[in-house]
Amino acid sequence: MSGIGTLEELRTRLAAFAAERDWEQFHSPKNLSMALAAESGELLEHFRWLSEAQSLDLPEATREEVALEIADVLLFLVRLADRLGIDPLQAAARKLELNARKYPVAKSRGRATKYDRL
Amino acid sequence: MSGIGTLEELRTRLAAFAAERDWEQFHSPKNLSMALAAESGELLEHFRWLSEAQSLDLPEATREEVALEIADVLLFLVRLADRLGIDPLQAAARKLELNARKYPVAKSRGRATKYDRL
Amino acid sequence: MSGIGTLEELRTRLAAFAAERDWEQFHSPKNLSMALAAESGELLEHFRWLSEAQSLDLPEATREEVALEIADVLLFLVRLADRLGIDPLQAAARKLELNARKYPVAKSRGRATKYDRL
Amino acid sequence: MSGIGTLEELRTRLAAFAAERDWEQFHSPKNLSMALAAESGELLEHFRWLSEAQSLDLPEATREEVALEIADVLLFLVRLADRLGIDPLQAAARKLELNARKYPVAKSRGRATKYDRL
Repeated sequence: MSGIGTLEELRTRLAAFAAERDWEQFHSPKNLSMALAAESGELLEHFRWLSEAQSLDLPEATREEVALEIADVLLFLVRLADRLGIDPLQAAARKLELNARKYPVAKSRGRATKYDRL
Repeated sequence: MSGIGTLEELRTRLAAFAAERDWEQFHSPKNLSMALAAESGELLEHFRWLSEAQSLDLPEATREEVALEIADVLLFLVRLADRLGIDPLQAAARKLELNARKYPVAKSRGRATKYDRL
Repeated sequence: MSGIGTLEELRTRLAAFAAERDWEQFHSPKNLSMALAAESGELLEHFRWLSEAQSLDLPEATREEVALEIADVLLFLVRLADRLGIDPLQAAARKLELNARKYPVAKSRGRATKYDRL
Repeated sequence: MSGIGTLEELRTRLAAFAAERDWEQFHSPKNLSMALAAESGELLEHFRWLSEAQSLDLPEATREEVALEIADVLLFLVRLADRLGIDPLQAAARKLELNARKYPVAKSRGRATKYDRL
């Protein structure tokens, strides 16, 4: 199998993967949001007992496992967006713009405070 | 602000966004995995009381909100991968290959059974 | 080991369990919130591909596994509350009162709408 | 409204609350597992940017909010268990016994290693 260069390519590959297995019936947005959250939970499992410093300096085997969990989250995220006809990169660009307004550099520098309390 | 064409571009933009605000101190992989899971939880909130059919046919306003939650998950996922030096598309390609082996078409057609019980 | 009759008894048992193993060092509220969310994710894994009707009628083996996941969530919830000096039943009573005000019977009967949109 | 003394009392109160509002139709185990995970995500939101030390020493207002999130998780957990006919304290006792065997004091003292790697 060759590599995957873009999110769009990943979207197509996942749609084919599901179609071949007749899995569309399971892939409602509701179910996919559950799968996505379940995989996010597996990421937490890797990090829950680590210090922040340790989480930045993972043993190679753990880093490998974490990479595959990140992949799982991405797969379900792309699949969910596809089923809803949402373009994730477009949505991300829009969100980034909103965040830039909610968190102006001057007010949020060095502070993790939520925007509505800045 | 112009659009964002690729995951790589999103990665760069997010790194700059954090650097400008001196937010690297908060962005340990541990903390980012928490942010990612929290945003996945917000996706669940939109879908929890909907039927599967309803989740496929969202009112426009809800679809808009869901798009921004998907964006949030993607932002933190890309940021997390960046802090760990992981390429999400490469990891996704690897995972897809593993899944193809774990779920051969003949055995998994029309069944949502986990691979270790197929 | 005899049974556990009350949440308070569970709290004491968990505190002893952690103390014997010198695990207090890992049991910051931050870490425990991650453990709690990770276990909630495992619950989702059991239900993600099931219909709502199927989820009400689990095979005995699955029901057994789900019972142990529910236990895991409860263990970490009680432990988290303990570390913060919060009484979970007292908080639940308070929340139930708030919910009764937010969701008056007349307005919310048969509707899953969030209170701020009722 | 008087206080709530036991989990069993909470279970009865929640069942009545749902019945009065005709909400049983929404309370499939599948949906309740989503609600539970969504509330766990809200807990993460409070802790994600805090250090472990800060999470042990919350400002009073935050502690109050966290108490209500803990309540939310407990409400949905009790409701989920009820819909499945599972006794959460009994399950917790069983899990605690399993954990005692998986994590013998001598091997797990001071270590957060998962049992299958001890």
